[in-house]
Amino acid sequence: MTYCLAASVDAGLVFASDSRTNAGVDHVSTYSKMHVFGRDGDRQIVLLSAGNLATTQAVIAQLDRDIRTGAPMNLMVMEGLADAADYVGQIIRNQEAKHGPAVAAAGFSPDATFIMGGQIGQRPPKVYLIYPQGNYITTSEQTRYLQIGETKYGKPILDRVIHADMSLEEAARCALVSIDSTMRSNATVGPPIELLAYRRDALVLSDYTKLVEDDPYLLEIRRAWNENITQAFLELPPLTWDQWLVRPRD
Amino acid sequence: MTYCLAASVDAGLVFASDSRTNAGVDHVSTYSKMHVFGRDGDRQIVLLSAGNLATTQAVIAQLDRDIRTGAPMNLMVMEGLADAADYVGQIIRNQEAKHGPAVAAAGFSPDATFIMGGQIGQRPPKVYLIYPQGNYITTSEQTRYLQIGETKYGKPILDRVIHADMSLEEAARCALVSIDSTMRSNATVGPPIELLAYRRDALVLSDYTKLVEDDPYLLEIRRAWNENITQAFLELPPLTWDQWLVRPRD
Repeated sequence: MTYCLAASVDAGLVFASDSRTNAGVDHVSTYSKMHVFGRDGDRQIVLLSAGNLATTQAVIAQLDRDIRTGAPMNLMVMEGLADAADYVGQIIRNQEAKHGPAVAAAGFSPDATFIMGGQIGQRPPKVYLIYPQGNYITTSEQTRYLQIGETKYGKPILDRVIHADMSLEEAARCALVSIDSTMRSNATVGPPIELLAYRRDALVLSDYTKLVEDDPYLLEIRRAWNENITQAFLELPPLTWDQWLVRPRD
Repeated sequence: MTYCLAASVDAGLVFASDSRTNAGVDHVSTYSKMHVFGRDGDRQIVLLSAGNLATTQAVIAQLDRDIRTGAPMNLMVMEGLADAADYVGQIIRNQEAKHGPAVAAAGFSPDATFIMGGQIGQRPPKVYLIYPQGNYITTSEQTRYLQIGETKYGKPILDRVIHADMSLEEAARCALVSIDSTMRSNATVGPPIELLAYRRDALVLSDYTKLVEDDPYLLEIRRAWNENITQAFLELPPLTWDQWLVRPRD
């Protein structure tokens, strides 16, 4: 599996991804799921990928090829991110049409899902989640994050912490905690963790880090989170015994 | 969906369940998923159910009927909980054999999964998870809890907090937080929440509570957990900017 997420806050965008891929338990490997495109001062586009590795690699390769060959549609000439999401969705559909039936016939899913975000020129930064069918959604005022892959373990912390006026550092830290919690509860999500923060209107990608399994900061945040969560739990008001009854028989 | 869990700690057992059932978004209703059987001073057996409501009701009805009619196998005459798990597994299989093909042909899953735990006589308290296929697992020294239904959202807190030497009150409080977190992130899990604590060797069920949506304690623990989690997050060591690099192009 995989776990990637992106958050859109007033200060900019944050992207985070794990690096584990697996096809069954025997084929566990490490691949970056973060892909960046852009031209400094003009546009920055980040893609995160989940799902069938062959499909995601084929999609990224096609995006690269379209830029290199100056195709009429490519990520460097799109006027807006919604257009870009539409174009990426079309490429996903094409790949699924090409290999999907054979892959599905062998009992595997050909599906790939992407998060794409960034900024083009003076338009506001945006994030999209692009489905295997090629359609897409974006964030809202109330829902500031998008997730793909193994999303459930890391959702409660996002629901509680992510809000519009947090700093990019806090948003990146929260994304890291969300991924690290998922790694602890699910073996198909694994390090290194990549984090990328994009400052609104910067039009350059300057804030990136990759945390390997024994990165001192990752170890420290894992230890501190474990301790803080336990403390947060112990400080909850206890159930008092006068709240208890005898369970009636059915 | 559903979310139920049980924890086995040195002090005894804790059972917790939500009460929402849904077949699609149009058929949302409230059913208790906690079922108790036993005879004070002799045995106490608690079942939690998830999955197809018709199957779970048929299984519970059969368990009741076998006791009432004094069938050779019933929960009141089993010598141990493993035997009881085996017997419940057989009843689940029978129900699936009876209705499964027709239900599956209509596009629904006939599957039901149970958690069963308690104590019989002087044997140690135990908890089992019984699969739709009738086989079952129990807890271990390292894994002190079992979950059924919508398990992922509430797992990270259990992984961090549940341990052998916690009090029953703490284990019940942790189960409550796990369910409440799940309710916040997933609309198919809902109140009332039932909590039952069984003290090792008591052989009576005296500690039970049912928390409705606006129960003052539930509201208070929800507010406090939200605040404590946010605080736990804010107290984590920040990412420092010297950890950041420029993301290399692919």
